[in-house]
Amino acid sequence: MIFASDNWAGVHPTIARRLSEESGGFAAAYGSSELDRKIEQQFNKLFEREVAVFFVATGTAANSLALAAVNRPGGVAFCHREAHMIEDECGAPEFFTHGARLAPVDGEYGKIDPEKLEAEIARFPPDFIHAGQPMAVSVTQATEIGTVYSLDEISEITSIAKSHGLPVHMDGARFANALVALDLTAAEMTWKAGVDIISFGATKNACWCAEAMVFTDPDMARDLPFIRKRAAQLFSKTRFIACQFDAYLQDYLWLDMARHANDMAKRLRNGLTASKHVRLGWETVTNEVFCILDKTVAENLKHHGAVFHEWNMPRSLQNQVLHNEILIRLVTNFATQSEHVDQFLDVLG
Amino acid sequence: MIFASDNWAGVHPTIARRLSEESGGFAAAYGSSELDRKIEQQFNKLFEREVAVFFVATGTAANSLALAAVNRPGGVAFCHREAHMIEDECGAPEFFTHGARLAPVDGEYGKIDPEKLEAEIARFPPDFIHAGQPMAVSVTQATEIGTVYSLDEISEITSIAKSHGLPVHMDGARFANALVALDLTAAEMTWKAGVDIISFGATKNACWCAEAMVFTDPDMARDLPFIRKRAAQLFSKTRFIACQFDAYLQDYLWLDMARHANDMAKRLRNGLTASKHVRLGWETVTNEVFCILDKTVAENLKHHGAVFHEWNMPRSLQNQVLHNEILIRLVTNFATQSEHVDQFLDVLG
Amino acid sequence: MIFASDNWAGVHPTIARRLSEESGGFAAAYGSSELDRKIEQQFNKLFEREVAVFFVATGTAANSLALAAVNRPGGVAFCHREAHMIEDECGAPEFFTHGARLAPVDGEYGKIDPEKLEAEIARFPPDFIHAGQPMAVSVTQATEIGTVYSLDEISEITSIAKSHGLPVHMDGARFANALVALDLTAAEMTWKAGVDIISFGATKNACWCAEAMVFTDPDMARDLPFIRKRAAQLFSKTRFIACQFDAYLQDYLWLDMARHANDMAKRLRNGLTASKHVRLGWETVTNEVFCILDKTVAENLKHHGAVFHEWNMPRSLQNQVLHNEILIRLVTNFATQSEHVDQFLDVLG
Amino acid sequence: MIFASDNWAGVHPTIARRLSEESGGFAAAYGSSELDRKIEQQFNKLFEREVAVFFVATGTAANSLALAAVNRPGGVAFCHREAHMIEDECGAPEFFTHGARLAPVDGEYGKIDPEKLEAEIARFPPDFIHAGQPMAVSVTQATEIGTVYSLDEISEITSIAKSHGLPVHMDGARFANALVALDLTAAEMTWKAGVDIISFGATKNACWCAEAMVFTDPDMARDLPFIRKRAAQLFSKTRFIACQFDAYLQDYLWLDMARHANDMAKRLRNGLTASKHVRLGWETVTNEVFCILDKTVAENLKHHGAVFHEWNMPRSLQNQVLHNEILIRLVTNFATQSEHVDQFLDVLG
Repeated sequence: MIFASDNWAGVHPTIARRLSEESGGFAAAYGSSELDRKIEQQFNKLFEREVAVFFVATGTAANSLALAAVNRPGGVAFCHREAHMIEDECGAPEFFTHGARLAPVDGEYGKIDPEKLEAEIARFPPDFIHAGQPMAVSVTQATEIGTVYSLDEISEITSIAKSHGLPVHMDGARFANALVALDLTAAEMTWKAGVDIISFGATKNACWCAEAMVFTDPDMARDLPFIRKRAAQLFSKTRFIACQFDAYLQDYLWLDMARHANDMAKRLRNGLTASKHVRLGWETVTNEVFCILDKTVAENLKHHGAVFHEWNMPRSLQNQVLHNEILIRLVTNFATQSEHVDQFLDVLG
Repeated sequence: MIFASDNWAGVHPTIARRLSEESGGFAAAYGSSELDRKIEQQFNKLFEREVAVFFVATGTAANSLALAAVNRPGGVAFCHREAHMIEDECGAPEFFTHGARLAPVDGEYGKIDPEKLEAEIARFPPDFIHAGQPMAVSVTQATEIGTVYSLDEISEITSIAKSHGLPVHMDGARFANALVALDLTAAEMTWKAGVDIISFGATKNACWCAEAMVFTDPDMARDLPFIRKRAAQLFSKTRFIACQFDAYLQDYLWLDMARHANDMAKRLRNGLTASKHVRLGWETVTNEVFCILDKTVAENLKHHGAVFHEWNMPRSLQNQVLHNEILIRLVTNFATQSEHVDQFLDVLG
Repeated sequence: MIFASDNWAGVHPTIARRLSEESGGFAAAYGSSELDRKIEQQFNKLFEREVAVFFVATGTAANSLALAAVNRPGGVAFCHREAHMIEDECGAPEFFTHGARLAPVDGEYGKIDPEKLEAEIARFPPDFIHAGQPMAVSVTQATEIGTVYSLDEISEITSIAKSHGLPVHMDGARFANALVALDLTAAEMTWKAGVDIISFGATKNACWCAEAMVFTDPDMARDLPFIRKRAAQLFSKTRFIACQFDAYLQDYLWLDMARHANDMAKRLRNGLTASKHVRLGWETVTNEVFCILDKTVAENLKHHGAVFHEWNMPRSLQNQVLHNEILIRLVTNFATQSEHVDQFLDVLG
Repeated sequence: MIFASDNWAGVHPTIARRLSEESGGFAAAYGSSELDRKIEQQFNKLFEREVAVFFVATGTAANSLALAAVNRPGGVAFCHREAHMIEDECGAPEFFTHGARLAPVDGEYGKIDPEKLEAEIARFPPDFIHAGQPMAVSVTQATEIGTVYSLDEISEITSIAKSHGLPVHMDGARFANALVALDLTAAEMTWKAGVDIISFGATKNACWCAEAMVFTDPDMARDLPFIRKRAAQLFSKTRFIACQFDAYLQDYLWLDMARHANDMAKRLRNGLTASKHVRLGWETVTNEVFCILDKTVAENLKHHGAVFHEWNMPRSLQNQVLHNEILIRLVTNFATQSEHVDQFLDVLG
């Protein structure tokens, strides 16, 4: 009954096997092997155009270097107030951009409100040097709280960004979960909707370590080889990341795993909705579920072996909860079994 | 006949198997798993004292964050002119230290000359703000060119550093190769000789990605958890690095592999010495061999499938070579077979 | 009728004369002259203890280097949401701290609300590396909007900071204005109330360029000489800043000028209160006055030669203003004459 | 008998007077005043084309921000081994460029040797990410040691730079001294010879603080307003820098002062050449003179009130000096009187 985070899970057997197979022989290092080339081709296919792909060690690296690639002096990037970049990366985006600022934008359900984005950008007039200058907009898809931007919502954000000349980054730590939730192709959810750079995460979805930066306009990535190397993010034996992606992208494994995770979350949601001991915090469609419950109920679940994290109660819910109630996050993944879910629901009652 | 670099090799079967075994189940992320704790204990044993250990993605990260941990404003770190930090890390150490300078120190055979170190440090008097302030000395063990510092040589460098209040870092990308070449323990080659921080590399020695920073004084690493996280170097599924070290350190596998690599280099050196077509650039004792040969000889070797890199001819040799002669580097590793070596020597004649 | 900003004014005749007198002769450069030493003594007297004083070129430099001096990796500094650091320094504090974050804290009348400060600090638990680590609290005195923290209010903030081990910085761009408004000594308003570092601004108060960083604990400034030099903020002919402070601090000139500016603001406030065409935005006590008026009234004032800036309407007032009303800021200074004020009020009617 | 440095002198009476005159009245701040505009026009005239001009606080700031303006990730700037940037700026250029490297190039008489420049650039092949990427060449004119590049020498350097696509920066801390030594116009010595950015120093030549960055291609300076503001280098009362340049550039005052300083140095050189107690270190043509003399002679000079700095003996001279001999630097400036020089020579004998 582990619902703590998707990165508590291990590696899918197919990917583990692929890693083992790769262990022998010799291959050129630092991204120069044939396998590296092959994976780049796979990304081109996946995105239905020539893209530039760069492996990095962590999602934080992908997000930070994406901003670094488009940064300007006194730069300001706009993202949702609860974005991972702001909440959970210890200032890495600011560090890699030499002090750019992340301007938080509010919005319901973890999604940037377009009007508020406009208002926030307006606080930085192009020639007003005292405030700084806008340099990017970043959306998180799926969001940190289990929701997704619809295609229209993405387009609305990217239109605003473009009208101000700003590139758009998508933090796709849970890219696959969003894709299957919306039933879109990678191309549709990104560049066809105006997204320029994607943090393409696979680690949370059953790889042991596989994060890629995807630039849908390779020109934008011109300096990225140097940016990445200088950031100490160029693995020597890159083929061991490449082979994870090889297995990951083959035969729709990645989408199947994400679908499974989403399905497990749905099963969980359904059970939670039926229980009289909890209520959902809000509707989610990917592999995260948030629910409100009494502390003692949570304690009992833990006592029976359930593992999960308490979550900050959002302001909008603070008036709707009782004194003893808390918010918890439950995350599913490729390794979550329906038995885990059912056992959790049984204990809950 | 791949002698291009130790990181062209793959992963030792024992380590690959250990990785596969780890792929199932659930474990706490971000360095909090039991396996992470176990590996820390192994490092304590290995170094015969309590040390602080931090996994990072690359050797460049280990080197850069080591300097970041001890940096001061206007900081200057002293290292050999041919150190990896200076030659091959695209300015990462300078980037992570916000612009600290790497002051190159000369010395024969890839090793810092103690007198020259003193002279270089003397250029930065403690209160002379115009020049900057010394903050660390870094030695590379084994060196970039296949030699090693003897214990006395290390102590001489660290004594100078201590007399100026400077911590000493050891770039141990080939730590194991040096250890077996000198027949020393990890403790003897480091803190007992005055070394404070070690970039403990295992990737070049048969892991797919396993780099650790070791602080022999944990107090010195107080801010390292934040430094590493902010540097985007904290893996989520850390157990997959931990398990590599688990297999690596068990039953002396790491030393056996390094010994094998060194032995293969010795076999190569012996054969090269016997050949009339080449001569050694200088004596080496680890897994790198440098030799001078005619371009056409090199071409012929390549033609027969040998892979290796040409190397910059050091100034000291420039007057001793003929017009058509070049310097090449040959690197062995755990996967190098004696047949590879013999085949190379056969082609050479 | 120039009420645009205090830095639209020039230099007080006494200070201008002192500058002229200093123009001849020779003196040691880079802060080593006898005059530099003398001014340091004056600061010691002023603050009633040994302090460390560093001249810099701008208030932004003073603020930024103060944070740099106490920064930690992943550092977070807490300041009021409308602080100059956040609103008007183009990311300089973030730049000089290599990406530290300025966490905005709300509070009425431009002052940090102690409870909200506690709540904001609580979001960064000491060992939670994902969020970053607190490193300083900064208060602005006088605030950006003409108010001041009382001594009790300062102490309440500094107590909270100390309870978390955080140093306290005071942005004193209008230090003198606050001092005379509160009738306190420099020592009382700073270290006796728990303030550690002061951006001691004199430029806005009739110098041409005289900004000093004051560390009430010199130990905290140990690396500052290097930090400042590396920040390109060490003037060569420092005596020309020193001599401005020499005249500034002599015979209470600085306090007299601040008192005059505050008095002029008071005269303005009284007149505005009496007018039926405007109303005060809020009560101020230093040299800034904010008032709400109809756009056409503002246009008319400008038409008659008045110079001032429109100001962002704070949220708290947005429901209390009519469609055509705007908020303007009026700033007085040492050179403001009562005739200027009266003329302005006359035009206003 | 002050020959310590040109910045030990004060301010020329004409400039001091101009500063006094400016002290009254009101003017727009942050570079928006009419006077700021006027000075920009003067620079356009001076450089015979439209240029972009930015005042900063120090020469170090000008040098550092020039590199920041053209920097690239993993950037490397080439300058002479004894350049001020390398020797005397405490790592500021590295800091402002987030860790770019200054690659020292050797060359006689303080001037970059073109062949060595080519060789050094060649160490950074365009696509070799491990080494970093070239981003600028910087020349110092006049050099740190009193010599100047001839027009041909400048062109040779800039041609090499251009052939590699690199912009050229000129550190002109003693720009005027070089100009009069070569009898060239500002345009001839800069953009007509391929120089793109100039650190236009006036502080050493009788201003109290007047440093400008001049971009001969304004497009190259597009982000400079933000770069400067973020660097805490935007003065509020800019008119007080502007007015110094106003007086400085009027009626050739700046050139007259530089000529005077150079003449005084010539008088000194002639006297030194005639003395049997010293010999020149090398020929200089601007306002610096370097000579070798016995320590006891130097002591005697100091005893009689002469002030000067000992200088590092260059390697090329180390075999030509006796044990007790040292190298000293003598710097003249606008305020040096022939009596000072003669008195010095008298004491010397």
